[in-house]
Amino acid sequence: MSGSNTETKPAVVLLSGGLDSATALAIARDQGFTPYAMSFRYGQQHAVELEAAGLVAKAFGVVEHRVVEIDLRAFGGSALTDAIEVPKDRSTDAMSDGIPVTYVPARNTIFLSYALAWAEVLGAFDIFCGVNAVDYSGYPDCRPEFIRAFETMANLAIAATVENKGRMTFHAPLIEMTKAEIIKEGTKLGVDYALTHSCYDPVGQGACGRCDSCLLRKAGFESAGISDPTHYVD
Amino acid sequence: MSGSNTETKPAVVLLSGGLDSATALAIARDQGFTPYAMSFRYGQQHAVELEAAGLVAKAFGVVEHRVVEIDLRAFGGSALTDAIEVPKDRSTDAMSDGIPVTYVPARNTIFLSYALAWAEVLGAFDIFCGVNAVDYSGYPDCRPEFIRAFETMANLAIAATVENKGRMTFHAPLIEMTKAEIIKEGTKLGVDYALTHSCYDPVGQGACGRCDSCLLRKAGFESAGISDPTHYVD
Repeated sequence: MSGSNTETKPAVVLLSGGLDSATALAIARDQGFTPYAMSFRYGQQHAVELEAAGLVAKAFGVVEHRVVEIDLRAFGGSALTDAIEVPKDRSTDAMSDGIPVTYVPARNTIFLSYALAWAEVLGAFDIFCGVNAVDYSGYPDCRPEFIRAFETMANLAIAATVENKGRMTFHAPLIEMTKAEIIKEGTKLGVDYALTHSCYDPVGQGACGRCDSCLLRKAGFESAGISDPTHYVD
Repeated sequence: MSGSNTETKPAVVLLSGGLDSATALAIARDQGFTPYAMSFRYGQQHAVELEAAGLVAKAFGVVEHRVVEIDLRAFGGSALTDAIEVPKDRSTDAMSDGIPVTYVPARNTIFLSYALAWAEVLGAFDIFCGVNAVDYSGYPDCRPEFIRAFETMANLAIAATVENKGRMTFHAPLIEMTKAEIIKEGTKLGVDYALTHSCYDPVGQGACGRCDSCLLRKAGFESAGISDPTHYVD
């Protein structure tokens, strides 16, 4: 049904520049939504993902791609924003053992809050994000129960709901999918994964090939039987 | 019991520089918490309130006062951040009729999300805010059900809860109090309301005396039988 829809309901799509959020964007468009993409410059050491987000947004012809500047470094507490070493070469068992140092406190809560603000101003009632609970590397704010609780809270927070203009729906279409299933779905919907970026510890424009995110990405393409277009330096 | 507690549990207190949040800070301290104050520079036209926040934080000897820069103007949609006129001289009936143009989309959701991030990094499990549902001027994100839903969401969002380190509690001690009750309580706890700032449309260092916030403040002091130290230009 890709591209064959005639509805033009606006939706805010959180777009990190990674594989998952690019696929979520493709799904939103396929479901007939007119996507508005939102990314964050949050002090991440892998800011190259923002360039990827720009390329993905352009490839999908989003109406607007807004990059919000926020300073999560002010709080510290994560290998993604601080000078803490990103773990490498971990086994799948090690990855699923507890919450990794790449966890950023309240990151998805803050991102979804901004998406909520923008959606309300746009008059949109749909927010898409690419969170995933299967290959989620242990992040608490990627679980279905978190997304549901956020939706409940959001519908108590905004004027649009009080005024009965509509209910805000949070779509996490990948939440129960494996990385391989995500890659197959995105490929079917025309995502060019060469534009996307997953690495937590990039080397120039290349991916390290050894952080949790690279390892999950590699394994996903392999399991999907689809050729991985990523340039890994290792 | 003010000042007589020996516990030193850290708490994040959202401090706008207004009358309510100054009182919430006094209550947090009185309950034995060690307060960390957080304010936001969010493109508000009444940025003078941030100076007030600094004075209040200093007067209460907070451990740290963090001012987070966020750009809510990027979204627009409010008289507090845009060039929309702040309503003046409204009756209490008019104030309680619907959601006013001074509503900022998802503002409290974003503020509480940042407080959550900081609390997690600090190892704090208590967050105080001065939201108030009685004289709340119609903001949906000042209602008790919003605060409860935010707390539920927050406890699903953070690593500390998953790791059973504790549960995050959101304190909104003023939520069921009238403005007069708040002023009486704060006065008892030593709040110097001359340091605080409530006006939505300040004239230099003075308060306009005619916006909803000024009118509620004036009426609160009058009803409490306490002299109002505010300099109103009108």
